[in-house]
Amino acid sequence: MPVMNKVYLVGVGPGDPRLITRRAEQLIKTADVILYDRLVNPFIIQLSHPNADLINVGKTPYHKQIKQDEINKLIVQYGKTNKVIVRLKGGDPAIFGRVDEEIEVLENHDISYEIVPGITTASAAASYQSHGLTRRGTANQITFVTGHFQKDKEEPLKIQSLLDGGTIAVYMGLKRLPHLISEIKSQTDQTYEIAVISNVSLASQQTYKGNILTIESMIREIDKQSPALILIGEIVNSDRASWFEKLPRFGEKILVKGHYQEALEKAWSLYDQGIWSFISTEYEEQSNSRLQFEQSIIEHTIFDEVVEV
Amino acid sequence: MPVMNKVYLVGVGPGDPRLITRRAEQLIKTADVILYDRLVNPFIIQLSHPNADLINVGKTPYHKQIKQDEINKLIVQYGKTNKVIVRLKGGDPAIFGRVDEEIEVLENHDISYEIVPGITTASAAASYQSHGLTRRGTANQITFVTGHFQKDKEEPLKIQSLLDGGTIAVYMGLKRLPHLISEIKSQTDQTYEIAVISNVSLASQQTYKGNILTIESMIREIDKQSPALILIGEIVNSDRASWFEKLPRFGEKILVKGHYQEALEKAWSLYDQGIWSFISTEYEEQSNSRLQFEQSIIEHTIFDEVVEV
Repeated sequence: MPVMNKVYLVGVGPGDPRLITRRAEQLIKTADVILYDRLVNPFIIQLSHPNADLINVGKTPYHKQIKQDEINKLIVQYGKTNKVIVRLKGGDPAIFGRVDEEIEVLENHDISYEIVPGITTASAAASYQSHGLTRRGTANQITFVTGHFQKDKEEPLKIQSLLDGGTIAVYMGLKRLPHLISEIKSQTDQTYEIAVISNVSLASQQTYKGNILTIESMIREIDKQSPALILIGEIVNSDRASWFEKLPRFGEKILVKGHYQEALEKAWSLYDQGIWSFISTEYEEQSNSRLQFEQSIIEHTIFDEVVEV
Repeated sequence: MPVMNKVYLVGVGPGDPRLITRRAEQLIKTADVILYDRLVNPFIIQLSHPNADLINVGKTPYHKQIKQDEINKLIVQYGKTNKVIVRLKGGDPAIFGRVDEEIEVLENHDISYEIVPGITTASAAASYQSHGLTRRGTANQITFVTGHFQKDKEEPLKIQSLLDGGTIAVYMGLKRLPHLISEIKSQTDQTYEIAVISNVSLASQQTYKGNILTIESMIREIDKQSPALILIGEIVNSDRASWFEKLPRFGEKILVKGHYQEALEKAWSLYDQGIWSFISTEYEEQSNSRLQFEQSIIEHTIFDEVVEV
């Protein structure tokens, strides 16, 4: 069991809650306080204890995103209490997760911590598209880059990995896609394959495949607010369908009402069919933050169906 | 629940069984047949049903490694039966896991499949060393390369990512480390930090940190048979200790004897203290392959302690 007075920096993967690690699930269930990012699937947060304090440290509608400095302060403040603190991050904390900044502040305050890696989005994106990120003979390496830069500083794009025969995965790069494509065009005549996948591994996952000449016209309707992952290189296979998007009930959204354990089991089984599900349950005792969290999800989501168990 | 007659290509992460995904655990428990690689932690395979057929498709002592062609044939042969087939791989199938070759053969034979990504070794290596693979301002990208090449063809080493300020993670690169270092020296005067981590996330994890001038003399005693991960770049932090290697009972190996469920719970809790544990249990009914698997582990492992529950 987790020791008291420790901060756990936990990655929960890209969205499909079945991709959380056993360790992450155990810690979420045990946590007294959960500090969570905007992009964590709400169902994952529902795995928490009914009395857990849930603290949103990500962007919320009509509110400005909390700055990293403020998150660091909260981590220290809670980390000094005699509680199990879980800092929940989408994806993998080690890859564009700013985990070093949080570790540094914990080290400086002598607060014990552990880090739980998560499935990173690029990996799930490829797997759910029915291919890998590397392939013997054609994709000898994989490079992860980000479309987000410190203080919006525009850094030069490094595409040498691609020219060397590797795959490139761009995190949060939708806005910079035109810039990326013109950079590639300026350095080579090769029309690289490209895939843009939004909401990776969720029921709202959308895939656009083309090449660097055609992709921009294809993604005009994409919701620019959704997180998207871009894969570039020979690994992108336009002919092969995503096994995930072929699941029998892919794309449905269902609200499951009932007692906690039964509702949870039902929701897990729905995910196996490609359904995004969320539970609504009544407790005699529940933290205010948890109650508000559930109400907010129900208010902001359009469900295809409500199921009672 | 999994549908019958499907092949699941499942990554289980680098070693620590707590890093398997919920989906992987569910499938391992349900599988009729498990085709597993050499580097999968045996405790993970012990999560399987007592009557599951366990088939080792990796290298075993005194036997030559099974070729990919033969693995493909086995996958097709079992995939055509009315059973749940799990193909277990260490790490992440999408990253140097040769998943594309297995998907292709499944597609060619019209066999349904799903892919379950796993925590890739580089990510756990960094997290368990108390840092990330990227860091704002100093490590803007991460590139994964491999020391293994198709048909032992020596390909030129691509280190541009490193020169561009990124981190490089080399999978299975111990043998090529001298070559890699001389390549770096020939292209730059910078003495990059380097970490060599063997048996990532296991109780036998060993870490060597230095720079490209000092590392070769430091790793003379390393067991060249152990899988090792190499991290190169500014992200490697020589001052910061691994939280994992500081766990109170890190490095111990314990055999837990008793009824299956109790032994399993005990073993899981031991992993939380940094202990490598394995269970020994008696069933009235158990597949021959599972029985042999357990016997082989017990014969080949030196345990610090045997615990009865």
